[in-house]
Amino acid sequence: MPTTPLSLLVWNENVHESRGDETVTRIYPDGIHGAIAAGLREHFPQADVSTATLAEEEHGLSEEVLAGTDVLLWWGHVAHADVSDEVVERVKRHVLGGMGLLVLHSGHFSKIFKSLLGTTCSLLWRNEGERELVWNVNPGHPIAEGIPHPIVIPEQEMYGELFDIPAPDDLVFISSFTGGEVFRSGVTFTRGRGRIFYFSPGDQEYPVYHQAEIRKVLANGVKWAAPATRDRAVPGVGNPAREWFAS
Amino acid sequence: MPTTPLSLLVWNENVHESRGDETVTRIYPDGIHGAIAAGLREHFPQADVSTATLAEEEHGLSEEVLAGTDVLLWWGHVAHADVSDEVVERVKRHVLGGMGLLVLHSGHFSKIFKSLLGTTCSLLWRNEGERELVWNVNPGHPIAEGIPHPIVIPEQEMYGELFDIPAPDDLVFISSFTGGEVFRSGVTFTRGRGRIFYFSPGDQEYPVYHQAEIRKVLANGVKWAAPATRDRAVPGVGNPAREWFAS
Amino acid sequence: MPTTPLSLLVWNENVHESRGDETVTRIYPDGIHGAIAAGLREHFPQADVSTATLAEEEHGLSEEVLAGTDVLLWWGHVAHADVSDEVVERVKRHVLGGMGLLVLHSGHFSKIFKSLLGTTCSLLWRNEGERELVWNVNPGHPIAEGIPHPIVIPEQEMYGELFDIPAPDDLVFISSFTGGEVFRSGVTFTRGRGRIFYFSPGDQEYPVYHQAEIRKVLANGVKWAAPATRDRAVPGVGNPAREWFAS
Amino acid sequence: MPTTPLSLLVWNENVHESRGDETVTRIYPDGIHGAIAAGLREHFPQADVSTATLAEEEHGLSEEVLAGTDVLLWWGHVAHADVSDEVVERVKRHVLGGMGLLVLHSGHFSKIFKSLLGTTCSLLWRNEGERELVWNVNPGHPIAEGIPHPIVIPEQEMYGELFDIPAPDDLVFISSFTGGEVFRSGVTFTRGRGRIFYFSPGDQEYPVYHQAEIRKVLANGVKWAAPATRDRAVPGVGNPAREWFAS
Repeated sequence: MPTTPLSLLVWNENVHESRGDETVTRIYPDGIHGAIAAGLREHFPQADVSTATLAEEEHGLSEEVLAGTDVLLWWGHVAHADVSDEVVERVKRHVLGGMGLLVLHSGHFSKIFKSLLGTTCSLLWRNEGERELVWNVNPGHPIAEGIPHPIVIPEQEMYGELFDIPAPDDLVFISSFTGGEVFRSGVTFTRGRGRIFYFSPGDQEYPVYHQAEIRKVLANGVKWAAPATRDRAVPGVGNPAREWFAS
Repeated sequence: MPTTPLSLLVWNENVHESRGDETVTRIYPDGIHGAIAAGLREHFPQADVSTATLAEEEHGLSEEVLAGTDVLLWWGHVAHADVSDEVVERVKRHVLGGMGLLVLHSGHFSKIFKSLLGTTCSLLWRNEGERELVWNVNPGHPIAEGIPHPIVIPEQEMYGELFDIPAPDDLVFISSFTGGEVFRSGVTFTRGRGRIFYFSPGDQEYPVYHQAEIRKVLANGVKWAAPATRDRAVPGVGNPAREWFAS
Repeated sequence: MPTTPLSLLVWNENVHESRGDETVTRIYPDGIHGAIAAGLREHFPQADVSTATLAEEEHGLSEEVLAGTDVLLWWGHVAHADVSDEVVERVKRHVLGGMGLLVLHSGHFSKIFKSLLGTTCSLLWRNEGERELVWNVNPGHPIAEGIPHPIVIPEQEMYGELFDIPAPDDLVFISSFTGGEVFRSGVTFTRGRGRIFYFSPGDQEYPVYHQAEIRKVLANGVKWAAPATRDRAVPGVGNPAREWFAS
Repeated sequence: MPTTPLSLLVWNENVHESRGDETVTRIYPDGIHGAIAAGLREHFPQADVSTATLAEEEHGLSEEVLAGTDVLLWWGHVAHADVSDEVVERVKRHVLGGMGLLVLHSGHFSKIFKSLLGTTCSLLWRNEGERELVWNVNPGHPIAEGIPHPIVIPEQEMYGELFDIPAPDDLVFISSFTGGEVFRSGVTFTRGRGRIFYFSPGDQEYPVYHQAEIRKVLANGVKWAAPATRDRAVPGVGNPAREWFAS
C-alpha cells in the first residue's frame, strides 16, 4: 500500500436512493456510497476517498479517474444493465493492470464481476431480515485481522449456496442465516495484476454499512487489495528473442 | 479406479462398541465400521470390502494389508493416542505412495490426519442433536455427483469453525447447524501421490452412516480417492546427470 | 464418465489446413482435428468421436450437437475473431452446465477461453523449434496417470510466462524450453459445473499430436473432464421459502 | 506488519561455516545467516534483525526468543537431524500461533518444514553451477513486488521437480535450469495463523544471498509473512453453548 495518500473510489448505482425508496433513504441518508465512504474515512484518515454514481457522465469512471484510483468499491443492484459496456471494459483493464476491486453484496451480478470471473455468479436469496453470522475460516488472512468470530448481523437478506463462482484464491468468511443456508461471503480472486475481494453483507434495507465490524472488513479488504504502484500494466503478449533476459 | 476388484478397508477404533456404550451399540450393532462397510458394499458389489480395528495385531494394518488396499477409511474418537506411531508412519507412507484415504468425523484428531496436514485440526463441537444441513458448493466435483443439495441430517453433533486445517485443494461441502455454526464438512487434500477426503458427518450417537445420501458421499469419495494402480511410489530424492531424460 | 458411449467433439478452425499451409498439411494431412480425433479413438475405441470446423454452419456447434457432447476439444489460432459471439455464448452455457472442455495450444486466445477465465490469457512465444520438456508436478492427478516425467517434445513453439490466467484449480504440468523459459502447460479450472483443462503442447508446425504421450494426456484430460450426465444444469438464481429443503 | 520495530530472526545451522568448508567461508565470511541478515537490514533499517545457530543453547530458539520474533528465516542442510524435536515442536507452535516463517533452499528437508507440510519434501538436485532463471508467475503478489522477470542467477545448484509438497496456497516463482529441469521455487502456505514462504535459491556454494534481487524477494517475503500482532493464538478446541456469540 505504498501510494500516498491512498486513493479510494466508492461507486454506487445510487438508484434506490435517487428514486426515494423509503427504507433505503432512511437508513442511508447520504446514500449507500456515502456510508461506505464514511467508514473508509474512519480507517484511512489520510486517504483520498471519493464517490461516483451511475448518473454521472461515464458513470464517474473516466480514464483519468480510474488512473488515479488505488481501490474501487462497487455496489449495484437494480441497474446492472444500465452500466455501459465501454465503462465495464475500462474498469476491467484497470483491474487487470493492478487496480484493486471490492465487489459488494448484490454487485455479484454486476457486469464487471461476471466478466472477471466468467461464471453466472448466481445464488439463492430471501429477504426476510434473518440473522447473518459471518464466520472467519482463515484467521491469519490480512482481511480477517481484528474481526470478531463470528460477526453478528442482526438482520440481513439471506444469500445462499450455490454461489456460482470459480474456486476463490482465498476463502475468508462463510456466513450462515437463520433459515440454515450458508454462503461463501468473503472470497478473494486475482485477475491479471489486480486483487479482487467480494464481500456479501450489505443489503440496502438493513444498516449493515453502519456496523463497525463491517467497516473494518472493508478497510482490511482495501489494504489487502491496494497495489504497490499506480503504474497500470495489463499483461501482454511478447515475442522475445533467445536470451532476451541476459544482460 | 482401474484396480479390479477395488479393495477397500474400513478402520474403526471400535472402542465405543467393544466397551458397550449403549447408544452406539443400539445404532450400530455391527459397529460403526460394519455400517460403513455395508454402505460401501451396496455401491461396490464387486469390491473387496474389509474392516480392521484397534484391538487387532498391528491394529489390522500390517504392511501386507495396506499393500493390498486401494482406499482406507478411518474412524476414531476416544483412542487416538493408542494407535502406535509405527503403524501411523506405515499408513502415511502408503498414502504418500498413492493409497486413498477417507478420514471421518472425529478422525479429524487422529494421528494420521494431523501428521498429513501439519495443523492442529481443532474445531468447535457441541453434542445436542442439532440438525445438520450439508451444502454442496462444488456441483461439478465427482464427490458431489448425485448428492442432494442440501443433505438434511436430522440430528448430529455440531462441528464448527474454526476448523484448523490447511486450505483444502477442493472445498466440496459446507455444513450449518441449528445453532448457527458452520463447518467445512467435505474437503480434499493431496499429499504425495495420495488423495485424501475428509467428511465430517458421522457421530457415534446418531445413525448417520445408515443414511443413504451419506453412504453415497462415501462411495463417491472412495471412487475419487482410489489410485490407478497399487504400485506404491513415495516421492524420493534423485541426483540425476544432465540429459538423464534424453533417449 | 458414465455416459455410454462417450461423445467427444474435436473443434478446429481448420484455416491453416484449408488454405494449404504447406508445413501444416504435410504434418497433418487429415487436419489437426483429424490427428487429435485419431488419438482419441485409440484410447476410447467405444466412444463416438467427431469433428467440427469454423467453416461449417454455426461452426458445427449447433445446440443439438453440443447437447450430445460430453467433452469438446478446441484448437484455434488465426481465426479467433471469426468465431461468432452467439456460438461462443452457446458453448459457454454448455460448459457452465457441465460439458467438459479441453483448450489446446493457441486456443489460449480463443473467445471461449478468455470469456471463461476473465483474463487476457496472454503469454510469451517464439517459434524456433526449441525442445520442450513437460514436467509433471502433480503425480497423483488423474491427468498425469501413466505419463512419463518429463515428456520430451523434440521441437515446439516456445510458450513462456507470464501466462495471464487465474490461479488454476490444479497445476499438473510445467514446461521448460531450450531458451530457458517456463510455462504452466497443463492447468485445470472449474466454471459452473464444467471442468476445463488447458494443455499447451501442440503447434501446427510440429507433429506434436502424433506423439503417443501427448495423445495419452489428451485422453486422460477427456476422462477427467467428462461429466457424469448430459443433463446440462447451468447454476441459476433461486428465491426459496424458509425450510424449502425440509421433507 | 504493525509490530514496531519488526523483529526478525535468521536461523542457520552454521555447520559448513564452523567446520571451515572453504568455498562457503570465502563466499560467506559472516556465515550464510550473516549475509541474509545484512540483506534484511538493508531493507528494514528500523527492524531488530538477529541470528541464531544450531550450536547455541536450545539452538538459540528459546520460548522467550520466539515469543519476540515476528518472522523466522530458516537455513539448514547437513544437520537437520541434529535439531532437537522439542525445539521443532516449539517453533511449530509459534508458527501455528501466527509467527511468520521463511524456509530457504535446503531447508526443504528440515524437520520443521516437513512437519508443517506433511509430505516428504523431496526433490531432484544436481550441483554443477547451472544458470537458474526465476520466473514470476504471479505478478500481483506482494512477494513479487519490484522483482525482475526473470531473476537471473548465474550459477546455482539445480533443484528439480518433483518437489513433493502439498499444492501451495500461492505459486509465485518457477525456476528453470540450464539442464532443462523446472522447480516451484517460490511458494506460500498457511498453517494455523502462520504464513510460510519457501524460496529455493540459495546454495552455500554460490553467492546467491549477496544478489540484490534475492535480498528483495526475502524482504518481500518477510513483509508478507509478518503477523499483525505478537499475540500467539494457536487454534484450539472449544465446546461452546448455543448462542455463545450473542451479546
